[in-house]
Amino acid sequence: MISIGVIGCGYWGPNLVRNFSVLKGCRVKTLCDTDPHRLEAVSSLYSQVELTTDYSSLIADTDIDAVVIATPVRFHFEMALQSLLSGKHVFVEKPMVGNVHEGKILLETAAKHNLTLMVGHTFIYSPAVRKMKQIIDSGELGEIQYLSARRLNLGLFQKDINVAWDLAPHDISIILYVLDDSPLSVNCQGKAHVHPNIEDITNMVLNYHNGRIATIQSSWLDPNKVRDMTVVGSKKMLVYNDLEPMEKIKIYDKHVEIPPHYDTFAEFHYSYHYGDMHAPYIKQYEPLKRECRHFLDCIETGDTSESSGIEALKVVQVLEAASKSLKDGGGKIDIEPYYPSEVVSKTAVDSRLG
Amino acid sequence: MISIGVIGCGYWGPNLVRNFSVLKGCRVKTLCDTDPHRLEAVSSLYSQVELTTDYSSLIADTDIDAVVIATPVRFHFEMALQSLLSGKHVFVEKPMVGNVHEGKILLETAAKHNLTLMVGHTFIYSPAVRKMKQIIDSGELGEIQYLSARRLNLGLFQKDINVAWDLAPHDISIILYVLDDSPLSVNCQGKAHVHPNIEDITNMVLNYHNGRIATIQSSWLDPNKVRDMTVVGSKKMLVYNDLEPMEKIKIYDKHVEIPPHYDTFAEFHYSYHYGDMHAPYIKQYEPLKRECRHFLDCIETGDTSESSGIEALKVVQVLEAASKSLKDGGGKIDIEPYYPSEVVSKTAVDSRLG
Amino acid sequence: MISIGVIGCGYWGPNLVRNFSVLKGCRVKTLCDTDPHRLEAVSSLYSQVELTTDYSSLIADTDIDAVVIATPVRFHFEMALQSLLSGKHVFVEKPMVGNVHEGKILLETAAKHNLTLMVGHTFIYSPAVRKMKQIIDSGELGEIQYLSARRLNLGLFQKDINVAWDLAPHDISIILYVLDDSPLSVNCQGKAHVHPNIEDITNMVLNYHNGRIATIQSSWLDPNKVRDMTVVGSKKMLVYNDLEPMEKIKIYDKHVEIPPHYDTFAEFHYSYHYGDMHAPYIKQYEPLKRECRHFLDCIETGDTSESSGIEALKVVQVLEAASKSLKDGGGKIDIEPYYPSEVVSKTAVDSRLG
Amino acid sequence: MISIGVIGCGYWGPNLVRNFSVLKGCRVKTLCDTDPHRLEAVSSLYSQVELTTDYSSLIADTDIDAVVIATPVRFHFEMALQSLLSGKHVFVEKPMVGNVHEGKILLETAAKHNLTLMVGHTFIYSPAVRKMKQIIDSGELGEIQYLSARRLNLGLFQKDINVAWDLAPHDISIILYVLDDSPLSVNCQGKAHVHPNIEDITNMVLNYHNGRIATIQSSWLDPNKVRDMTVVGSKKMLVYNDLEPMEKIKIYDKHVEIPPHYDTFAEFHYSYHYGDMHAPYIKQYEPLKRECRHFLDCIETGDTSESSGIEALKVVQVLEAASKSLKDGGGKIDIEPYYPSEVVSKTAVDSRLG
Repeated sequence: MISIGVIGCGYWGPNLVRNFSVLKGCRVKTLCDTDPHRLEAVSSLYSQVELTTDYSSLIADTDIDAVVIATPVRFHFEMALQSLLSGKHVFVEKPMVGNVHEGKILLETAAKHNLTLMVGHTFIYSPAVRKMKQIIDSGELGEIQYLSARRLNLGLFQKDINVAWDLAPHDISIILYVLDDSPLSVNCQGKAHVHPNIEDITNMVLNYHNGRIATIQSSWLDPNKVRDMTVVGSKKMLVYNDLEPMEKIKIYDKHVEIPPHYDTFAEFHYSYHYGDMHAPYIKQYEPLKRECRHFLDCIETGDTSESSGIEALKVVQVLEAASKSLKDGGGKIDIEPYYPSEVVSKTAVDSRLG
Repeated sequence: MISIGVIGCGYWGPNLVRNFSVLKGCRVKTLCDTDPHRLEAVSSLYSQVELTTDYSSLIADTDIDAVVIATPVRFHFEMALQSLLSGKHVFVEKPMVGNVHEGKILLETAAKHNLTLMVGHTFIYSPAVRKMKQIIDSGELGEIQYLSARRLNLGLFQKDINVAWDLAPHDISIILYVLDDSPLSVNCQGKAHVHPNIEDITNMVLNYHNGRIATIQSSWLDPNKVRDMTVVGSKKMLVYNDLEPMEKIKIYDKHVEIPPHYDTFAEFHYSYHYGDMHAPYIKQYEPLKRECRHFLDCIETGDTSESSGIEALKVVQVLEAASKSLKDGGGKIDIEPYYPSEVVSKTAVDSRLG
Repeated sequence: MISIGVIGCGYWGPNLVRNFSVLKGCRVKTLCDTDPHRLEAVSSLYSQVELTTDYSSLIADTDIDAVVIATPVRFHFEMALQSLLSGKHVFVEKPMVGNVHEGKILLETAAKHNLTLMVGHTFIYSPAVRKMKQIIDSGELGEIQYLSARRLNLGLFQKDINVAWDLAPHDISIILYVLDDSPLSVNCQGKAHVHPNIEDITNMVLNYHNGRIATIQSSWLDPNKVRDMTVVGSKKMLVYNDLEPMEKIKIYDKHVEIPPHYDTFAEFHYSYHYGDMHAPYIKQYEPLKRECRHFLDCIETGDTSESSGIEALKVVQVLEAASKSLKDGGGKIDIEPYYPSEVVSKTAVDSRLG
Repeated sequence: MISIGVIGCGYWGPNLVRNFSVLKGCRVKTLCDTDPHRLEAVSSLYSQVELTTDYSSLIADTDIDAVVIATPVRFHFEMALQSLLSGKHVFVEKPMVGNVHEGKILLETAAKHNLTLMVGHTFIYSPAVRKMKQIIDSGELGEIQYLSARRLNLGLFQKDINVAWDLAPHDISIILYVLDDSPLSVNCQGKAHVHPNIEDITNMVLNYHNGRIATIQSSWLDPNKVRDMTVVGSKKMLVYNDLEPMEKIKIYDKHVEIPPHYDTFAEFHYSYHYGDMHAPYIKQYEPLKRECRHFLDCIETGDTSESSGIEALKVVQVLEAASKSLKDGGGKIDIEPYYPSEVVSKTAVDSRLG
């Protein structure tokens, strides 16, 4: 029976509590939030759960095996690191941390203590994204040439991170997952309209080998909610619209054919082949439930999670590069590959803990 | 009675012939195309029209008062310049020419001979775009902070120009028209997937005073046809979807409000106000018909067209800057303001004509 | 503190348990279901709830003040009647009962014992339907001439009731609520495709004074899920689409104007005025939560519920008339108005109870 | 070279003129309309066409081989009959005539004189409807159990016919074509809101062998334009939405499966199988052009048209039965099968001609 403590009962925390409360093989022992009203509200459904406003005491609780962190990003590193150093497995919401350096420290610490470190990139556990990867891996689309993602809505505005750090982690984690390839560099442009220095609109470009690119638009300033992704392959195209109730994925059997030479028609345009559209059936389930189940399984088996610290670090690397590019006016920022073997000096850890 | 000669009976030309054929105060005297089959096909409806495959003879015809040019871009300058030098008024399809230098020569030549030079930026004559400008000018949206346009579809691929030169002129002309402001610089990134060196996907950013930006996405590689524009104002937002049969323009009474200081809620997010959505009634008519009528009126009155050579030159300036930025890997390219007073040496004209 | 017992933990029951569990002033004491696995599954979240597979013992429990019934319709009457006779307030899911006679008995019994009898017509507690009624009552649409509702999807097939009894209660209760008028008669046609004698497609017409009609289409055999209602007024039209995430209600300022006599154009058609479209902002909340709160309030205050037994009986009257019309091949079946004063002989009750 | 005279240059006539003007093997000799302004407007594009406001003179013209009639329905019979009696082939717009009796007279007359009589049921020449028939005939959907059509919009109101006669002919002709089966009887209910005695909303039911039904909703009083058809088969379902720009036809691999007996789950509902959705590619072309071409071919070959008088008569039979049912309050009206062999007394013809 894995005993769990949850830190953060704001917007997302309650969903984690709900799922861990019904999963077999674990129990939610303690809830923590700085706001007593939130604690009361959430706990009303879970009469036997202990409550605290002091996260350190929760982390210090020797009866707790795993800590689930659903707080603003700026608290992630401190709470996750303390939990790991206290021998707790850690599930932390995305993005894992606010910079690559902190991410590496968490990775190394988890590795050193043989603890599970998993990050809440929920979308890669969703049936639609699984189906999309399956289709791409099958080669049905041919070679993937281009990928374009949009995540737009009005608000919710964060005060301490920009829209890229707030919304893009979803798209970055999905793209890393389905392409199974690491970008070499990142460009990012954006603009802050509402709050100075906090971009509410960003356009990101991930640059891959052979000039393949993936673009990500993120916005807090769009009247319409948009959650879509277009994948252009050499044979077919795929559109993933997460807001579609039934047909979330549509495959278009359309592609461009370069006409034979000397075809005078080609003087004016390429011919292109139009074909059928196909929306595969996707069985629905709650991604978060599968994600929580996966966390418990990894703790028991010691397996590496599909959204482990290493995968999560790649997301942070892209976000950090994007931030640099934003300051740089959109210039290309390289991503240096990370080798887990790389050692983080213990002093680095101690220094952060003072 | 204005006598008109039309050069180019391909994809768009026939629409111009159809409109000029029914408008009062003019007649279509001659059609020209290099392809005799196209000529025959188009003329079947217009039994009294003369046909030729030699555009020079059409331009030389002293009975013709105005020349309408609907050919691939690379022929625009030569044909328009010859027509102006032969004393003909000129209506040329967009983009006016392939570079700023040629555009200036056409402007100066038209001015010198007191001839009407008009470019087919049809959208600024459409009821939806007129309504959009009217709403923006009324101040209903507040100060315009951000504008985002998309024009996506599969093909038609051009062989001699990239997707930015093919599709973006529509959006650039609309943005210049509704904002009534000139961008200071342009960034553009893109990628050529199908044909080397001809980008089929481009993302353009127009940079204005005070950091205001407008973004334009153009693609020949999207399975879905998209023609939309989002305008974010300080008070309201507007979405223009040209593919909507009825409600092409929707105004969203939603905006972000910065909460008072010391509001603890603000620690987590800005509040935002949701309001009504409103789709104003837009009376339909054919924009091209209005545009053709406007050309005839400008010839008669000598007035400057709403899509005159000067307006069209601004579009070419943006496109030329975008091309430089593309080669430059997305860097910012400044646009030097153009003063019509500026003189183009006669030699420049002669040199081109050899 | 109102003590509640819930009978039926199948498809809908758990939602009622969830809401009553968090509402102030009540507690869920006992859950009942014939399937022990369902009981276990639902109770896992509510550790202090008692469980039973015998609904009679639940009804007999003197510590329970109110019984909530979410079982198949065929059990409603028996369970509700026993509960009332045991002095319990009753909340029963829709449709209240399978025929008018049973409905009257429940009404009279509740009245006789001064108990609250409320039926789960959830939609009349939804923000969109409230807004629709408010708009209609304001007169903005003019006189309501016609109303058309559709509720279509694939399955879920009931075994003991047809699609009209399964889906139409939603639409009937909404129409009765927003029009605040009782139909004089009903026509209904339909067809059973999948299971003999259980119609899976029905088209119902409610006939009102002055020939005003409302139509209701119900289907278990449509590939697309549809939940909409069109209201035609003498001034404006309203469309309520419950599947729209944001703009559930759209008001169209379009109406037909009869042209003056002697207008030759009128020989061919009426002119019609096109105007703006307007989607009012609707604040979201969970209708079921409000409904459950309302039930508790009615118990405390003794007020009559907005979905009281009397309102629910009108729905059953329409359904019963529709069933007769179905057997009758679509003929018009009158609805005899019901006067609550009407007495139901005690023997009727006893006879049913044996 | 077939010489054609066109009567009626109102809403639809010009489209017929445009097509016949470019088709090989024919020429438009004369246009007729009672309104000189319409004549002038339409003829402006066709300089060599003769004009007249007297349709009798057009019919009497011995140089004319075929008469095309695009007038209000009430003139169809008179003009078509005179044309046939003058030895002209006839193309008349839908509905062919206002009652079955007149329809039979036209049929017999055309047959007697070996003339082509064709009616403008354009939709059966459209690529989407052809594809739909092909899919149904292939058996992919299994046995067709149910068909439901909707054709709704605001106006255009006719003054001399109700909405069923105005809009339903499209749907009736499509249904007759794709099912290739004749209904045994018709039910129709409706209501006149705007103009007394002219229904602006009708719901029609076509009853076939084995209780199979097809429903047709027609409305002039809907704020949204709707043109769709749902076909429910024993294996799959098909939705045809004529307003979809690309995917007009969608096939849903969903159907209901009756679970094995003794499956306790079946106590509550039938299981249903969800599968993929598939939108076949449909090559676009102008249906009217194909229809006009087909008329010319039938004249030359003497073949019977796919929308011959006999097919058109079936449509009129349904409409006439629907009108009777409307007056009858929705009762079932039988359709008596028609045998072309049936003789129409010459006196009947003469009497009408006086």
